Amino acid sequence: MLHLHSSSPDRWLSQVDQNLNAVLIDHAHCEQKAASTAMHVMFEYVENEELRQQMTEIITEELEHFHLVLALLKQRGIRFYKMKPGTYGRKLMQLCRRQEPHKAVDRLLIAALIEARSCERFVLLRDHLQDRQLSDFYGSLYESEARHHTTYVRLAQSYGSDEAVNSRLEALAVAEATIIADGCELPRVHS
Amino acid sequence: MLHLHSSSPDRWLSQVDQNLNAVLIDHAHCEQKAASTAMHVMFEYVENEELRQQMTEIITEELEHFHLVLALLKQRGIRFYKMKPGTYGRKLMQLCRRQEPHKAVDRLLIAALIEARSCERFVLLRDHLQDRQLSDFYGSLYESEARHHTTYVRLAQSYGSDEAVNSRLEALAVAEATIIADGCELPRVHS
Repeated sequence: MLHLHSSSPDRWLSQVDQNLNAVLIDHAHCEQKAASTAMHVMFEYVENEELRQQMTEIITEELEHFHLVLALLKQRGIRFYKMKPGTYGRKLMQLCRRQEPHKAVDRLLIAALIEARSCERFVLLRDHLQDRQLSDFYGSLYESEARHHTTYVRLAQSYGSDEAVNSRLEALAVAEATIIADGCELPRVHS
Repeated sequence: MLHLHSSSPDRWLSQVDQNLNAVLIDHAHCEQKAASTAMHVMFEYVENEELRQQMTEIITEELEHFHLVLALLKQRGIRFYKMKPGTYGRKLMQLCRRQEPHKAVDRLLIAALIEARSCERFVLLRDHLQDRQLSDFYGSLYESEARHHTTYVRLAQSYGSDEAVNSRLEALAVAEATIIADGCELPRVHS
């Protein structure tokens, strides 16, 4: 699914069941982090016209989702607070090569994989959660994650040959699957 | 005007006249930097509900302006490229205190002063530029800079007493006027 090399382990849904509020709060943080990532990428590669357009759309959409999650938290009386992030994003970013144009390829492909994993997990949440409102909520969000995944992969292809980018995507997807398999004890969207 | 302690020197309009294209390109960068600053501020102080709302609005508006400037450049056949920033922003940020809540106050007041200076200069450009399209363009933008200034000052007041924040705003405005008086040899919006 969307280049991912693994499905989420059952262990994650247990973390969700035991810490639903923490996962919801983390979800709000993830949406803002996604907007922030798109802003960073735009800042770094601002000369790329297609990238500017796409990043602007992603920033706007992620901020909309951020406020949707915050509204959901408020409605449920869950206090939103600044929460320690899980280790997933940091571990993935450690794989990013330092030299351009490899850095651009990796930055965009890592963003693509995060969107893919979010998509996979939102589908799992849609199917798993008994709470109808939450189930519908995740059912309404996963498609945009899939779209963002595709956008990031396409943009990466402007910084390398198709062959080089596809091969790097495979390698990063294998690494991503290992990070997911190792897990993170904090209950988070990407634990 | 908007807490500024000086008017822009005539020297700046000479820089504009001699390097109009560079100033226009820098203007696009400024709009993106303003969106990026609002994103950073939101990330840092994400528990503040009013700040989140206001930063989201500012991010959206600055990105709109960013694309307006890019469209203007394109229409005029001016190639947009990544340009070395002037020294203004960096010099201002050096004044930011490191400890909270002072850091929040300073971060917001510095953003407020940058918006104020942009506003002052957009009015100057509106009145000075012979090119009708550009003159109208700057005439259409300055009000939002004034609004953002007011928003940032109000948000700063949630991190300190009115007296402390006003007194810090005065001190930073004096420093900002010195930075402007010292100038920057690169032709930029805030040189």
